[in-house]
Amino acid sequence: MSVTSALGFRSSGVAAGLKSTGKPDVAVVVNDGPDRHAAAVFTTNRVAAAPVHWSRQAVSDGRADAVVLNSGGANAATGHQGFQDAHATAEHAAARLGVSAGDVLVCSTGLIGLPQAMDRLLPGVTAAVEALDVDGGDAAAQAIMTTDSVPKTAVHAGPGYTIGGMAKGAGMLAPGMATMLCVITTDAVVDPGGLHAALAEAVRTTLNRADSDGCMSTNDTVVLMASGASGSTPDPGAFQEGLRQVCADLARQLIADAEGAAHEIAIRVVNATTEDAAEAVARAVARSNLFKTAVFGQDPNWGRVISAVGTVPEDVAPYDPNLLDVTFNGVQVCRNAGVGEDRDLVDLSGREVSVVIDLHAGQAEATIWTNDLTHDYVHENSAYSS
Amino acid sequence: MSVTSALGFRSSGVAAGLKSTGKPDVAVVVNDGPDRHAAAVFTTNRVAAAPVHWSRQAVSDGRADAVVLNSGGANAATGHQGFQDAHATAEHAAARLGVSAGDVLVCSTGLIGLPQAMDRLLPGVTAAVEALDVDGGDAAAQAIMTTDSVPKTAVHAGPGYTIGGMAKGAGMLAPGMATMLCVITTDAVVDPGGLHAALAEAVRTTLNRADSDGCMSTNDTVVLMASGASGSTPDPGAFQEGLRQVCADLARQLIADAEGAAHEIAIRVVNATTEDAAEAVARAVARSNLFKTAVFGQDPNWGRVISAVGTVPEDVAPYDPNLLDVTFNGVQVCRNAGVGEDRDLVDLSGREVSVVIDLHAGQAEATIWTNDLTHDYVHENSAYSS
Repeated sequence: MSVTSALGFRSSGVAAGLKSTGKPDVAVVVNDGPDRHAAAVFTTNRVAAAPVHWSRQAVSDGRADAVVLNSGGANAATGHQGFQDAHATAEHAAARLGVSAGDVLVCSTGLIGLPQAMDRLLPGVTAAVEALDVDGGDAAAQAIMTTDSVPKTAVHAGPGYTIGGMAKGAGMLAPGMATMLCVITTDAVVDPGGLHAALAEAVRTTLNRADSDGCMSTNDTVVLMASGASGSTPDPGAFQEGLRQVCADLARQLIADAEGAAHEIAIRVVNATTEDAAEAVARAVARSNLFKTAVFGQDPNWGRVISAVGTVPEDVAPYDPNLLDVTFNGVQVCRNAGVGEDRDLVDLSGREVSVVIDLHAGQAEATIWTNDLTHDYVHENSAYSS
Repeated sequence: MSVTSALGFRSSGVAAGLKSTGKPDVAVVVNDGPDRHAAAVFTTNRVAAAPVHWSRQAVSDGRADAVVLNSGGANAATGHQGFQDAHATAEHAAARLGVSAGDVLVCSTGLIGLPQAMDRLLPGVTAAVEALDVDGGDAAAQAIMTTDSVPKTAVHAGPGYTIGGMAKGAGMLAPGMATMLCVITTDAVVDPGGLHAALAEAVRTTLNRADSDGCMSTNDTVVLMASGASGSTPDPGAFQEGLRQVCADLARQLIADAEGAAHEIAIRVVNATTEDAAEAVARAVARSNLFKTAVFGQDPNWGRVISAVGTVPEDVAPYDPNLLDVTFNGVQVCRNAGVGEDRDLVDLSGREVSVVIDLHAGQAEATIWTNDLTHDYVHENSAYSS
């Protein structure tokens, strides 16, 4: 159930003292081949962390032999020294693995603006390399957690091959993914171009539509590695769908464990002119603090929904404002932008909330997953620096 | 100190039973001339309330004889009936004032999605017309309050003329202004074209830059009326500046009284390539829930500031991500996108917080005023429908 579900991978997670709690904080995932194909997508934040700059360059040739991940320090806003530290981390791991540093990706998460504690990280990498194991996937998933309450892993069994992955992320979940590190492995035979196309498409409709608090991180990274160890060359469509399922499963787990959330909310916009239009409308609602606090208060406040819908410019999402319908958990509380069914019929006491917005403008749809805005969110993010 | 500070205006505020508290909820402002020049700006929300549709049409000829305002009901998302109710309100006031309904503007604020309680509103308008007084400005400012804790009024004494205004607004303060109703009066002699140009420019850099929670309302309206009763024709530049001061004063009061806020935050972006670029960057920071919770926690978290800055696309705001400086209350905690002065030197215990972001890209600047994100915000907006 993680990055070692697929054949050809070893992994590990160890405690290096980067976290003040003493919990595991360094993970390594190694691809033992025979293929070392890889693809990755990264945050679109212009203030990207040093490991993002390093890994973007390292994976650009479609090859990765290993990924080193650490929690307990984001190595973001750390300038030239930060890049040198990311580079040194890759060199250190590469030397112990007998591979080229240019084929080692680095992912970091934790506090922004602090120098990486290299005196702890490098011994941790040494220990993690020594601990590598074909059953090490769960240990790795543990080691990348920050404010996550549970590790996130997923697996898909395809015909003759496996796709497995792990992710971390709890706050700052947003458009270009999340403060989100995610490593997915497969033993299928897929070339780097095929991996990249499949990953970009899978992320687009899953992890990129998990928008917990609208805040985009500096460190988001999703890596996909293929070992080819199964010897099985998948049907591209089936592989795409399997990868999408793994990403969707991880995205749901991220939203379900978002900092301080009391509800997971699926905002589905239907009958839009285009998928982009539907996504823009859903995201506008997902970013409305008034909507999010209403859900926390178990209030099916459709007025706040249509107010948010109304902020999307007409050239982005054409629709007639007089035709909007809004349904909360199956009850159509707003019809034609006015009062619909009795709002008292809506039960928002459970964790899962479904909001469907009908634009009556076309046939496209999209769903954004978000959370409510709660006292615990305010508490966690005001009481602790991150 | 309100809409009756200028000569030629009468006003009133009465309790009509629209608010369950029994507090004043209907106001009327009348321009007794000799001029009846007017201009107005409205929310850009596509789901605009019925009174916005009515008033936009009514003011389009540059004339307004009166404004009727009510709290206790937004008349938004009320369909055709809502527009008929806004129209009937104008007709009712016009008959009692002896003017044309097409010269009576209507502004409403309160809950969205409920039919306007016309059986209470119309008698309230009758009573308000009977109560009109040249000293009625403060009563009107009281009657338009919703969750405001204090009425907001401002006055500017120009050479030979006066500009005075009132505003309400506490939550949902955002780009196209706020859930904000604002009436400004002047006894200067200014034609409708001059009024509109001056109002649009004044609002652009003041009320439109008050962005408390990123949520744009359906009812925002700012009306400016000129009676010409002073007989004084102002210098256009001086009038513009006086109007800007009144709008800025009201905007500051709105931010200072925002729902549940513990801090007023001025986010000033300097050395941008253009004013638009500076505004886009400042607004991105103002919309970051992580930044806003950090300020609530008195944490000068510059990492969250530059993370938000990094989300602004390069074509919107060109800058080098490695050159960002961030200053909290005079302490430059971030230099060149890395650690600067000691963050422990920053004191965020007061209500006023200044954040200056230096892009080192040009010479333009802009300031957005916002609030922190607090437990009280979550409480007020989850416990009460609005």
